[in-house]
Amino acid sequence: MQINSLSEIATLADHLPTADAAMREGARAHQDALTKPPGSLGRLEDLAIFMAGWRATARPEISKAQALVFAGNHGVCAQGVNPYPQAVTAQMVANFEHGGAAINQLCRANGADLSVIALDLDTPTADFTQGRAMTEAETLEAMNRGAAAVDPGADVVILGEMGIGNSTIAAALASALFEGTPSDWVGPGTGSDAEGLARKIAAITTGLALHGAKSPMEILAALGGREQAAICGAVLAARAQRIPVILDGFICTSAAATLYAADPRLLDHCLVGHVSAEPGHRRLLGAIDKRAVLEFDMRLGEGSGAALALGILRSALACHNGMATFAQAGISEA
Amino acid sequence: MQINSLSEIATLADHLPTADAAMREGARAHQDALTKPPGSLGRLEDLAIFMAGWRATARPEISKAQALVFAGNHGVCAQGVNPYPQAVTAQMVANFEHGGAAINQLCRANGADLSVIALDLDTPTADFTQGRAMTEAETLEAMNRGAAAVDPGADVVILGEMGIGNSTIAAALASALFEGTPSDWVGPGTGSDAEGLARKIAAITTGLALHGAKSPMEILAALGGREQAAICGAVLAARAQRIPVILDGFICTSAAATLYAADPRLLDHCLVGHVSAEPGHRRLLGAIDKRAVLEFDMRLGEGSGAALALGILRSALACHNGMATFAQAGISEA
Repeated sequence: MQINSLSEIATLADHLPTADAAMREGARAHQDALTKPPGSLGRLEDLAIFMAGWRATARPEISKAQALVFAGNHGVCAQGVNPYPQAVTAQMVANFEHGGAAINQLCRANGADLSVIALDLDTPTADFTQGRAMTEAETLEAMNRGAAAVDPGADVVILGEMGIGNSTIAAALASALFEGTPSDWVGPGTGSDAEGLARKIAAITTGLALHGAKSPMEILAALGGREQAAICGAVLAARAQRIPVILDGFICTSAAATLYAADPRLLDHCLVGHVSAEPGHRRLLGAIDKRAVLEFDMRLGEGSGAALALGILRSALACHNGMATFAQAGISEA
Repeated sequence: MQINSLSEIATLADHLPTADAAMREGARAHQDALTKPPGSLGRLEDLAIFMAGWRATARPEISKAQALVFAGNHGVCAQGVNPYPQAVTAQMVANFEHGGAAINQLCRANGADLSVIALDLDTPTADFTQGRAMTEAETLEAMNRGAAAVDPGADVVILGEMGIGNSTIAAALASALFEGTPSDWVGPGTGSDAEGLARKIAAITTGLALHGAKSPMEILAALGGREQAAICGAVLAARAQRIPVILDGFICTSAAATLYAADPRLLDHCLVGHVSAEPGHRRLLGAIDKRAVLEFDMRLGEGSGAALALGILRSALACHNGMATFAQAGISEA
């Protein structure tokens, strides 16, 4: 998939694949024949049916789960929005590459192949309090790098991010896209104190005043950053190939929410892996009408909550594909 | 472990092992050194620390996870409390043995070794509306079978049950042990309609009037059944060997709740894997002061929610044991 302009994105939902209704129905009928009271596996049943629709098969499997973590740096760090130095982004990318981060362990435990894509860390996006974070060309380049990273052979794609300062980007995007003031969307991120929170709110307030009303994809370019654009590109490329996506926490979801704001159907193939302890995430899930798979008080990013949810999805499909039916097992019905 | 009388159980908490406070502290300190903002793995951190305390090591691992599913039949089925015939208990045991049930798939997906223990299915316990479900000797025999089933080499034990009619047993136990009327505790179970619910409430009301006020373990004997007693025995035997337990849904938790009522400390080593869609379970978790690991609208039993939670526990330990520290990774701190 090649994305050629920001303005075309809102129109994509008319052309991209939709869930296969017949395969969803087939999966539902299969669930009801399995050796359990109908509906008694709860949301595990819903997850299996979701997968059946998007993979267009009544018996979906996960042979390959791909985890993509995009990393970027942000000019708005000049406003003192994060207690960590910006060098930590590259240090954490090295930690990912050496296998030492939470996402490495969670991918191994839940069976995902991890790729880390560092996006021009030495040239942070512009400070959105001073001007637009990215040009349209920079935004498209990052989106297309995200799109190109999606493995066409994957059965599910997990998305995550790393970028010092990017909880401010997330709150800025949410403030621009949805109802609520910056203070409704801002939270502690990696560990801001009250003064840090005030600096985040001030930066976002300045940015919103500077950039004014724009289309959702122009908001993405104005407020940044590259990892957010790459997440959008990966969401779209996965959709084009009928690959379901598991989004992660506040930062990942706020990036994808720019697509929702462009056309809500663009996120129909996306699960949200968990609801983060970062307070804006629950509000954001309400705005995009999604219920998270898990709620575990996590607030790390990296795709960690999405990788944890992958294990649940694997269990859902194990039941769907491995259980006997009442007829096969010779069990009396009610 | 041999349990010789019901009256001794309340005194066991004074003698059984407790969580190792030093190892908990060591695990907490290790968590705070890992390459993430402190606390950002949320409840995954809590699970790792819980395991450290009970396994008495700062770096707990799960080499062997044992799943035990106990099956029993119940005389109270004569009161029409379940839409399925009682023969289904044995049919489902056969399904477990042939690998066709949900718990088989969930154990395989989450790495547990499953054992199914059928407890005298051909001789159901007595109908508790007519007399006590079990004698003390029958209760002790079932408890000791449960205790004997625990593998001393296990690092964690998952408990589940199967028994047509046993959601009525669960509601009866909860009604006798805790505040609330039978209608506060009764739910649809495997699929009772309004008339079935009324029969469940009537049977429990009759049973409570017949048996009067008793000690918690005498309540267990009076209301049954064998799988509930076996679950209690397994919980105690696991505790004696410092093996943490993951309880399942309403039926499993209500069985273990008889131990809580005898002495709350007896469940200190127990997690509850999920909060069931069976409405009494949430109320019961309040009564025994436990927060479930997962909430997934499941209501199957068999240990299914506990097995799903095992996967989360494995992820928690993968992070705890596999992540680099800030010092190891050379990452700048805040």
